[in-house]
Amino acid sequence: MKIAVFGLGLIGGSIAKELSTRSLGTVEVYGIEKNPDHARQAIDLKLVNSILTLEEAIEKCQVFILAVPVNAIENVLLNVLNNIKSHQVVFDVGSTKKEICASIKSHKNRSRFVAAHPLAGTEFSGPQAAILGLFDGKKNIICEKALSDDDAIETTLKIFEFLGMNSYFLSSEEHDKHMAYVSHLSHVTSFALSQTVLDIEKDEKQIFNMASTGFASTARLAKCNPITWTAIFEKNAKYLSEALDVYIVKMKAFKQLVDKIDTQGMHASIEEANQIERVLKGIKLNKK
Amino acid sequence: MKIAVFGLGLIGGSIAKELSTRSLGTVEVYGIEKNPDHARQAIDLKLVNSILTLEEAIEKCQVFILAVPVNAIENVLLNVLNNIKSHQVVFDVGSTKKEICASIKSHKNRSRFVAAHPLAGTEFSGPQAAILGLFDGKKNIICEKALSDDDAIETTLKIFEFLGMNSYFLSSEEHDKHMAYVSHLSHVTSFALSQTVLDIEKDEKQIFNMASTGFASTARLAKCNPITWTAIFEKNAKYLSEALDVYIVKMKAFKQLVDKIDTQGMHASIEEANQIERVLKGIKLNKK
Repeated sequence: MKIAVFGLGLIGGSIAKELSTRSLGTVEVYGIEKNPDHARQAIDLKLVNSILTLEEAIEKCQVFILAVPVNAIENVLLNVLNNIKSHQVVFDVGSTKKEICASIKSHKNRSRFVAAHPLAGTEFSGPQAAILGLFDGKKNIICEKALSDDDAIETTLKIFEFLGMNSYFLSSEEHDKHMAYVSHLSHVTSFALSQTVLDIEKDEKQIFNMASTGFASTARLAKCNPITWTAIFEKNAKYLSEALDVYIVKMKAFKQLVDKIDTQGMHASIEEANQIERVLKGIKLNKK
Repeated sequence: MKIAVFGLGLIGGSIAKELSTRSLGTVEVYGIEKNPDHARQAIDLKLVNSILTLEEAIEKCQVFILAVPVNAIENVLLNVLNNIKSHQVVFDVGSTKKEICASIKSHKNRSRFVAAHPLAGTEFSGPQAAILGLFDGKKNIICEKALSDDDAIETTLKIFEFLGMNSYFLSSEEHDKHMAYVSHLSHVTSFALSQTVLDIEKDEKQIFNMASTGFASTARLAKCNPITWTAIFEKNAKYLSEALDVYIVKMKAFKQLVDKIDTQGMHASIEEANQIERVLKGIKLNKK
């Protein structure tokens, strides 16, 4: 099987690496990459056999994986769907789904597209951030399953299985809403935490000496790529805004307890937060 | 040398474990622990030789380490200082320093006390959370150095060196202010994140399936012990409230950018947050 990966950053690069390294030659992986530095790195790192143009990829490959930033997916997807044949499959791996699905809803080749979102990543970016095992044991979401041909779903599921992922199905609306809370909000809390600490650090250098593992954990996502995340926030602005509203209310409520030095109130609030352990213990962490 | 550790939770237990296990018999470690379950666990886990009363500890030991919650330290410290001899040393390991130092400022035995704060921890608590290597390569802060006798400082530094820590010196006021930003605030951001996600989850169970490693990292501290952290927030309410104010302003500013779908503004804000990488790369993480 010949597969073309569009965009060889952290996610596209890691998929390419996994397919190139572990398929025992049964899969040939090609890249479509506009950034010449990334293209060169992907070749050097042996993530892909070679870099193709869109036309060459359409000619040569059976499966197209779109791993460009979410604000670029619609355009690339349209180009692919305009040229795709009935035996070919295209799926994306973007972190938002609703607008992407809406953009090609009435396309004559809609059924050759599968909307996917593998729930995996790190705070790093670019081909050099690509790692083996990134997807192993984690979950993949497929949206609007009914609008894709059965064989297209099957091919997509097989590739995610190869990556070690279990897939499940959701509407694109539900997907985007939940992601605003469990993923996109986390990133904004890290950005704001980072900015708050950097504000203080301007005058006082010893903050470098005082940050510990707890801070490292909560601020880790503040290192995330601005291009990737600005695009995601743009595409999911409505639900992210809702999530931010709820979150700011929680923060203000906790601040009131602190200001009143309300011991019982703080204790109860932390106990409420402790319940997240149920959720956290089910999450598979990245190997170091 | 005989050392008494007051409070055998995560921090006291880990110090006791390190001293008991790695001192080649040169240190005997005793525990003072009110919670009978914790006392039994500490014995079973061989963290300490035996459990003593305060009076027995004063009679037997040369060094007293106070690792009880910060709202209990003042009382225990006063009891120890009232009974301490000129060859004995007491230091605490609490996460706040100003009120503790103020409480014994005029005590006749003040100079036998050293105010310390080893910057290490995990999200777990109790004697069973005690681990070897928790302190290794991390930093310890000592406050109000000038008010402690030189030999008391020396003994304290030696113990932290044994734990693998470098110590440095700060006023208790500066300590508490910085900790509000780089440690205490991180915990509140995790609590609020956890509560926000749990609010949504009430109706919609699939959130369990959507939380990924990024969420796990930013919400990790939401598992922290409510007794420990309520006490810390009480003792550092003023500076924590200031830090929360700055943080809430940052969150609201980001929300405005999201609401306006201000691509350039979001990009610039994330780039600003990215600068935290300078700080993060200097933080030694816990071994897994």
